Amino acid sequence: MKQSLGAKPIAYPTPVFLVGSYDADGRANMMNAAWGGICCSVPPCVMVAIREERHSYQAIIDRKAFTINIPSRELVVEADYFGIASGRNQDKLAVAGLTVERSELVDAPLLCAAPLVLECRLLSTQQLGSHSLFVGEICDVKVESSCLDRAGLPDARKIDPLVFAPGNSAYFALGDCVAQAFAAGKKLMP
Amino acid sequence: MKQSLGAKPIAYPTPVFLVGSYDADGRANMMNAAWGGICCSVPPCVMVAIREERHSYQAIIDRKAFTINIPSRELVVEADYFGIASGRNQDKLAVAGLTVERSELVDAPLLCAAPLVLECRLLSTQQLGSHSLFVGEICDVKVESSCLDRAGLPDARKIDPLVFAPGNSAYFALGDCVAQAFAAGKKLMP
Repeated sequence: MKQSLGAKPIAYPTPVFLVGSYDADGRANMMNAAWGGICCSVPPCVMVAIREERHSYQAIIDRKAFTINIPSRELVVEADYFGIASGRNQDKLAVAGLTVERSELVDAPLLCAAPLVLECRLLSTQQLGSHSLFVGEICDVKVESSCLDRAGLPDARKIDPLVFAPGNSAYFALGDCVAQAFAAGKKLMP
Repeated sequence: MKQSLGAKPIAYPTPVFLVGSYDADGRANMMNAAWGGICCSVPPCVMVAIREERHSYQAIIDRKAFTINIPSRELVVEADYFGIASGRNQDKLAVAGLTVERSELVDAPLLCAAPLVLECRLLSTQQLGSHSLFVGEICDVKVESSCLDRAGLPDARKIDPLVFAPGNSAYFALGDCVAQAFAAGKKLMP
């Protein structure tokens, strides 16, 4: 028996994207965004939703670039801090004791401590209401060598990404591997 | 030391959205989409990316509606099947032995077995390349009563959602609760 909760932004899982940008003063900033996801395969694109009042909003529009940095479990305190503080009045990277390097592909900073980083060129923005939808073309994916599997692909288990749960407002880690995609469903194919 | 993987659609985690629609013949269909996510809080909106050749593509445009059904771990075989079969030539719900009911709010079917369902009104589409980005306004969220916590909010642990990992192409379950959001980061606030 299902109950109605009303119109709410709730779905599972949501990511923990640390969105990197340079502001008008050239200072690197990271914000935490749970509203986002991959949105195209060719060209590879990622979407992130940002409130206009966020310091990162104008920075990304001005530089036409951002990074998506995927934090591992051990970065949970820093990731949450990036969501509750503003780069407008704090140097969040200095407070968190984390370093960035400049992307060679787009005008945005890479978070050195993140095991996986996407470098994105801003393709479009769409104003929806409280948030605007930013679509970026993924120019490159960079991953820590220690997080690759034998086939040279990123290993989700080694990356150990954070997973956000709205409603509970809790961060989770990945759990059991339940099944292989494009394989488990074959037993139902006629 | 980071390695470049090139331009690829890889991020963690991605959701397992079972996208429900009615086709031109009035037949209910579910497709599996990992490219998507919440994209606005007010009004609450969700984004899902769909290839034009998918049977659901035209169905959603014609009906201006879709549902996002969140499968629990026990639906992994059916969820994966919904991603490898096409509703153009198979009645996927009949094959999977799953039932739907008609939404009273939008012209789309709710998957009865899914613990959490979003009923969405199509707001916009944007053609990006291989995929088009569909933004839907969430008109209601319905959740199994057994998946609510004491505060009446959905409990992610009870919903037990699937998590998709690109690269590995594997489905995971939620693991440990690592920290509480909007709280863990306070220790870094000046």
